[in-house]
Amino acid sequence: MDDSVLEALVIENKSKIVLLVLDGLGDIPDAARGGRTPLGAARKPNLDAITPGSALGRILPVAPGITPGSGPGHLALFGYDPIQVVVGRGVLEALGAGMPLQRGDVAARANFCTIDPQGVVVDRRAGRIASDVSAKLVEKLAKETGRIDDVEVILKAGKQHRFVALFRGPGLAGDVTDADPHHEGVPIPDVRPLDESAAGQKTAHIVNRFVARAKDVLQREKVANAALVRGVSARPHFPGYLERFKLRAAAIAAYPMYRGVAELAGMSVLPVGDTPADAFALARERWNDFDYFFIHVKATDMAGEDGNFDAKVAAIETVDAALPALLALEPDVLCVTGDHSTPVPAKAHSWHPVPVLVHGHLCGADHSPQFNEKSACAGSLGDLRSRDLMAVLLANALRLDKYGA
Amino acid sequence: MDDSVLEALVIENKSKIVLLVLDGLGDIPDAARGGRTPLGAARKPNLDAITPGSALGRILPVAPGITPGSGPGHLALFGYDPIQVVVGRGVLEALGAGMPLQRGDVAARANFCTIDPQGVVVDRRAGRIASDVSAKLVEKLAKETGRIDDVEVILKAGKQHRFVALFRGPGLAGDVTDADPHHEGVPIPDVRPLDESAAGQKTAHIVNRFVARAKDVLQREKVANAALVRGVSARPHFPGYLERFKLRAAAIAAYPMYRGVAELAGMSVLPVGDTPADAFALARERWNDFDYFFIHVKATDMAGEDGNFDAKVAAIETVDAALPALLALEPDVLCVTGDHSTPVPAKAHSWHPVPVLVHGHLCGADHSPQFNEKSACAGSLGDLRSRDLMAVLLANALRLDKYGA
Repeated sequence: MDDSVLEALVIENKSKIVLLVLDGLGDIPDAARGGRTPLGAARKPNLDAITPGSALGRILPVAPGITPGSGPGHLALFGYDPIQVVVGRGVLEALGAGMPLQRGDVAARANFCTIDPQGVVVDRRAGRIASDVSAKLVEKLAKETGRIDDVEVILKAGKQHRFVALFRGPGLAGDVTDADPHHEGVPIPDVRPLDESAAGQKTAHIVNRFVARAKDVLQREKVANAALVRGVSARPHFPGYLERFKLRAAAIAAYPMYRGVAELAGMSVLPVGDTPADAFALARERWNDFDYFFIHVKATDMAGEDGNFDAKVAAIETVDAALPALLALEPDVLCVTGDHSTPVPAKAHSWHPVPVLVHGHLCGADHSPQFNEKSACAGSLGDLRSRDLMAVLLANALRLDKYGA
Repeated sequence: MDDSVLEALVIENKSKIVLLVLDGLGDIPDAARGGRTPLGAARKPNLDAITPGSALGRILPVAPGITPGSGPGHLALFGYDPIQVVVGRGVLEALGAGMPLQRGDVAARANFCTIDPQGVVVDRRAGRIASDVSAKLVEKLAKETGRIDDVEVILKAGKQHRFVALFRGPGLAGDVTDADPHHEGVPIPDVRPLDESAAGQKTAHIVNRFVARAKDVLQREKVANAALVRGVSARPHFPGYLERFKLRAAAIAAYPMYRGVAELAGMSVLPVGDTPADAFALARERWNDFDYFFIHVKATDMAGEDGNFDAKVAAIETVDAALPALLALEPDVLCVTGDHSTPVPAKAHSWHPVPVLVHGHLCGADHSPQFNEKSACAGSLGDLRSRDLMAVLLANALRLDKYGA
């Protein structure tokens, strides 16, 4: 269904919706654990208490077989089509680095490399130099390239050889090629605009100047003597929660990437501590200021990425232990799910559908004794695209008018 | 799949298809009734007898989270995309009032209101005047506005302050704004065409003349002295059952709205009594004249709207008691479902998927002991969009050719 059809049905009321995202929640049965998943194995008495009265189901973040990154995974949960609404690599990297983006900003992923005297790239990652060494190079580079024409250049060091380059100035665009040959043995290519626009031409010119300046600044450095730039992209602008859903939305997320994506969706991003207890306490504190709360928990995904079953169980149990504070707020609709699966045996994001639980007075109780991948598969919500979950939550909050007479 | 791909596969044979629609059939578990739904609680030995040999599943009328009106709900069951094929508010109102619509007709919802001497709307509903008082005003208004230029104006009283206005004449269109400010304290706005077409301009002119005439006619009335007009829409025209599916289709429905929508879909609308027994007797009588029978039962929806669990159970049991007469006709394909859910706890249409049962010699028996929301959720038909059900019924009737070699 076209977004505009949904948005035309949105009505306002006093209800409160909470979307509690356990990042990477979904998993696959682990034979070594009796075929259980971390969600199935976790002791979660508080979640168990509301599960029989909840509707269960599964969500598919992008499409069958597609493993989503964190950007598309969250955009879909926020009700955007992750194929249509694209956030560029550079922008995601900047958001993940906690760099506030203004409208018109262009961001890129960058990293140090080594080139030979003829300018040929000999090591695209400069031997994966240590983060602290790299940070000093970024500092030096930033000092020497503070401004190119009317464009401010803001750099932020990342892990090892990586850093983020942010270009802020009038008339920039994201549609340019990479200053990165993507393999060794050739020189760094010039950046070219992908269209005829003046903004593309200007951006290509600025990025090329930046790459040239980096060569100058770094020429006497031993560990890295040049920089590559890729994934140049403009901060996207699309209608946010207030405009689309008439919801005053708050994001309670400790990690920059999720704060950034939530900010793109028009949420108010609240400063918060690291634990679920911190997050729920903040929700309580700001309960009257918002209609919708996106609460993000990172630990489940990290445990999945580490292939650590017990750590993922513990992360879920920590959320459950803190849950009474959230339940005490009596949200009209509570949804517990993930942005994607990060199965312990995969040690990475995956394409598997993600279990979802929706609790509300008209959700249609499934009377399932437990919330896990298997019960979710049999749940009354069925299999949904993640981007359709938002409509289900609005419906449960009685925030959608009837379609047609 | 594009409609044209499906329609190209349609073949003719002697099979008979029955679509038995229990309006608002779907429900959600009621904690006060041991977590049962009306469909689960109803004693339905005749349906039970065919259930193990049937395929079960669920249908989604429009999209996840979307609550459909009766129009979209039925259009989807009839194999139309309810987002693409839109029946305007005024047209649905006219159909619901039992006003036969001809091609080119434009219909609108109207109601009496009160305005002050400056023309400002002070009560949009004229104090919700009694239906009999309103009917007299409609009669008076109809007498004085029988014709505006070459356009015939046909009025029909509804409940309380409401009535339907039908405009019949050459060159009219539906794309005009409302003669309704939608809130009080401002004058009735002029109707404007939504495009540059001559038909839009003419329609706006005619509706404005009607609103002006109503002010003249009603000016000395105490209870209401003006009329508002909204949802102006033209009778849509789209390919019907014969053209699309090579089916001679009959509609057996007692209520005007469903008769009207079936007529839009090209069905022959048969006059019928109120009960399921009447409907099945009529099907028997006309069995040889048609390939497809749409049979509509309203009582389930009404009970759901009333929040009356027992009445919904009774409505289902009444259908079941009459069912042997229908089964005796031995339709090749029998489908039992609803156009949407009307859960008793919601007392309204809802977004929840609707259980569906398909019985036929190649349906693939699920061996479910009972037809209810839970068994439907686990059924072999899976979750379908309502608009795709028609293809499943045609397939079961062996009326679809293979796609590709």
